[in-house]
Amino acid sequence: MNVERPRGTRDFTPEEMRKRAYIERVLRSVVEKFNYQEVLFPAFEHAELFSLKSGEEISDHMYVFKDKGERSLCLRPEATASVARMFGTSLRERHRPVKVYYFGPMYRYEEPQKNRYREFWQFGVEVIGASSRESDAEAVLLAEACLATLGVKHSIEISHLGVMRSLLEDMGIPESQQDHVIACLDRKNLDELKKIVSDELLFSLLELSGGRSVIEKARDLLGGRVKALEKLEELDEAAALLDAAKVGYKINLGMARGLAYYTGMIMELRVPALGAQNQICGGGRYDNLVKLFSGLDEPAVGFAFGFDRLLDAVETQKIPIPPDEELVIVAPASDEARGEAFEIANQLRRKIKRKVELDLMNRKLGRVLEYAAKARARYVVIVGLKELKEDKVIVRDMERGEQKEVVIDDIYGLL
Amino acid sequence: MNVERPRGTRDFTPEEMRKRAYIERVLRSVVEKFNYQEVLFPAFEHAELFSLKSGEEISDHMYVFKDKGERSLCLRPEATASVARMFGTSLRERHRPVKVYYFGPMYRYEEPQKNRYREFWQFGVEVIGASSRESDAEAVLLAEACLATLGVKHSIEISHLGVMRSLLEDMGIPESQQDHVIACLDRKNLDELKKIVSDELLFSLLELSGGRSVIEKARDLLGGRVKALEKLEELDEAAALLDAAKVGYKINLGMARGLAYYTGMIMELRVPALGAQNQICGGGRYDNLVKLFSGLDEPAVGFAFGFDRLLDAVETQKIPIPPDEELVIVAPASDEARGEAFEIANQLRRKIKRKVELDLMNRKLGRVLEYAAKARARYVVIVGLKELKEDKVIVRDMERGEQKEVVIDDIYGLL
Repeated sequence: MNVERPRGTRDFTPEEMRKRAYIERVLRSVVEKFNYQEVLFPAFEHAELFSLKSGEEISDHMYVFKDKGERSLCLRPEATASVARMFGTSLRERHRPVKVYYFGPMYRYEEPQKNRYREFWQFGVEVIGASSRESDAEAVLLAEACLATLGVKHSIEISHLGVMRSLLEDMGIPESQQDHVIACLDRKNLDELKKIVSDELLFSLLELSGGRSVIEKARDLLGGRVKALEKLEELDEAAALLDAAKVGYKINLGMARGLAYYTGMIMELRVPALGAQNQICGGGRYDNLVKLFSGLDEPAVGFAFGFDRLLDAVETQKIPIPPDEELVIVAPASDEARGEAFEIANQLRRKIKRKVELDLMNRKLGRVLEYAAKARARYVVIVGLKELKEDKVIVRDMERGEQKEVVIDDIYGLL
Repeated sequence: MNVERPRGTRDFTPEEMRKRAYIERVLRSVVEKFNYQEVLFPAFEHAELFSLKSGEEISDHMYVFKDKGERSLCLRPEATASVARMFGTSLRERHRPVKVYYFGPMYRYEEPQKNRYREFWQFGVEVIGASSRESDAEAVLLAEACLATLGVKHSIEISHLGVMRSLLEDMGIPESQQDHVIACLDRKNLDELKKIVSDELLFSLLELSGGRSVIEKARDLLGGRVKALEKLEELDEAAALLDAAKVGYKINLGMARGLAYYTGMIMELRVPALGAQNQICGGGRYDNLVKLFSGLDEPAVGFAFGFDRLLDAVETQKIPIPPDEELVIVAPASDEARGEAFEIANQLRRKIKRKVELDLMNRKLGRVLEYAAKARARYVVIVGLKELKEDKVIVRDMERGEQKEVVIDDIYGLL
């Protein structure tokens, strides 16, 4: 009987988990420093939560299934819709802004490829209730602080979908078609785009990319289009705050996002060293989604890290992970000493900082030492009847290859 | 549009997550001290992994769905079968014993009730490759150490399913029907049991419960049944090790487990204060499961905590959670100071230990102070143009209700 792991999913070994736990710890510490608080929500939701407004990229790739009551459920393909739903269900009474973070697996039925899995992890934050430029800029600042704390080299791009949406509105293109335009743009499918939009202005705008001077050029292009200009000012104000905090970024007005609910500033962080799938973080402002799912008209902004890619970046850049506590192995020298060895291991765990493992294999002493070498143990404590008569055990220092008899009461200070 | 949360699932608020994160941290620290290492595996597997050997309690309540390739997938209803599968896929080359732990959600389609949810979390450990009494006893010792470190008052019961399986084998009852007998016993359905087994010996054995003297009584009852007696000796040896470590427990030979794969020692930890659903931890030895899913004949033992019930126990017993870092809120006194306030908040986060939140709401000063009181901030830093001219800000101590002007360079030492 050989049951295989489902395609596009992964197992994570202890060595991988140590790295993941480290990265998780760093991300938590950074977002908690900014006073974001953790929330948790189900891995599946009613399917309409995601089919309604997440966009083409997602709706074609959802894991949908019926429960025994014939309701359509869906493994969450992303978290922002869930957080918007949770806000309505469980957080609506809170003082604003509601600043939350989450960490968990997401599910998309896609063709597996390097750095793209059917089960993948996201670490993200959402701010609900704030519409200020500070909240836009803080999203970028916070994502940058996470990567800087980890030591991951990256680049940042920002834009503002409100500029494009206003422009498309001026051209008489309705919201649903705007979503499609933005999806085309996200896929860099300009041919498809040209079938819908003929105005050259849009295409000139999409080509603008660079430092803050881009805003000036865009202003010139937009001329008297008041609404689009207002949105451009929002981007400029957020950029000014980032300048104040000395965060480096590029403005790229040709950028879009795969998710359909963004309305304002958008952001992407990339790690060039990762190759084709190098986007490590994405997000932006979504001012209509929370109302859709909670009835409360609350602006919102957030972003998420692709956690698996973050792990890949840490490995690619060979960023050192703090070493684990060293290991002490306790083993009886003979069957008669097994009770004493069990108890000494137990006492050691209470009294020393190192990890303590009892031999669970009834190994002969030579084999215990072989195992200790493989497990990179620092010390082996050998519990033998002869030494026990003098209240002693043998302590072997695996690094120095020496051993000596030690009074039991003294091992706690020694190890 | 009102999308509800699926039935039997939950949202966890920041306050609940703080408690959960604390409990998780304690459990991790204890099992890592024993040198268990974290692993992670998919939330869904091919359905046969769980339908084959998990037993009646589980197979009736699985979330099964077909993927687009028409393969039957199942949200994991428990983790031990997954770990056995993962061992075969990803851990088979490792030196023995393989000692792992996991933490994650499980899924069972059951009628929701107090402390029983469709999505629930388990924290568990598995030891693969060890058959020693030390490994049995360590499972109990480790579970006890977790609860003792948390300060959760509990009781421990142990038994050995090998005794009963040997007896049933002697009676000519095949393994598949043994599983059903054990399932009946787990549900305390003795009437059903009597239809299958007529031998009074079994029922006398099931009534034995108490201290280590129970073993002696069982020996007498079992008479010359060699195989059952061998299993009983295993239980006695594990109990002797627990005595050596001064772990309190009760032997209850009438105990069973809902999962069908157990073959040896079994264990349950209960928190009496929790009422009807008071079992907080369960586990035992399963020597055939790993072979079934990996082809490798490896003995194994493990247990899992019901994490949600652990949270309930911590709340019921009013166990204090370490307090969070205090909060400092930074707010501009006027629009002109917004860039400076953004930057001062950013600097503070690098230089002080407290959490630092920038006002994201463009609130007037009075409103900021109201919010700061609600958010229980310790300090508010007010950034105004007038004070900035002298390189100063206003620092308000919310606890004392006082405020003063402070030179910016001095606030890092003060806060």
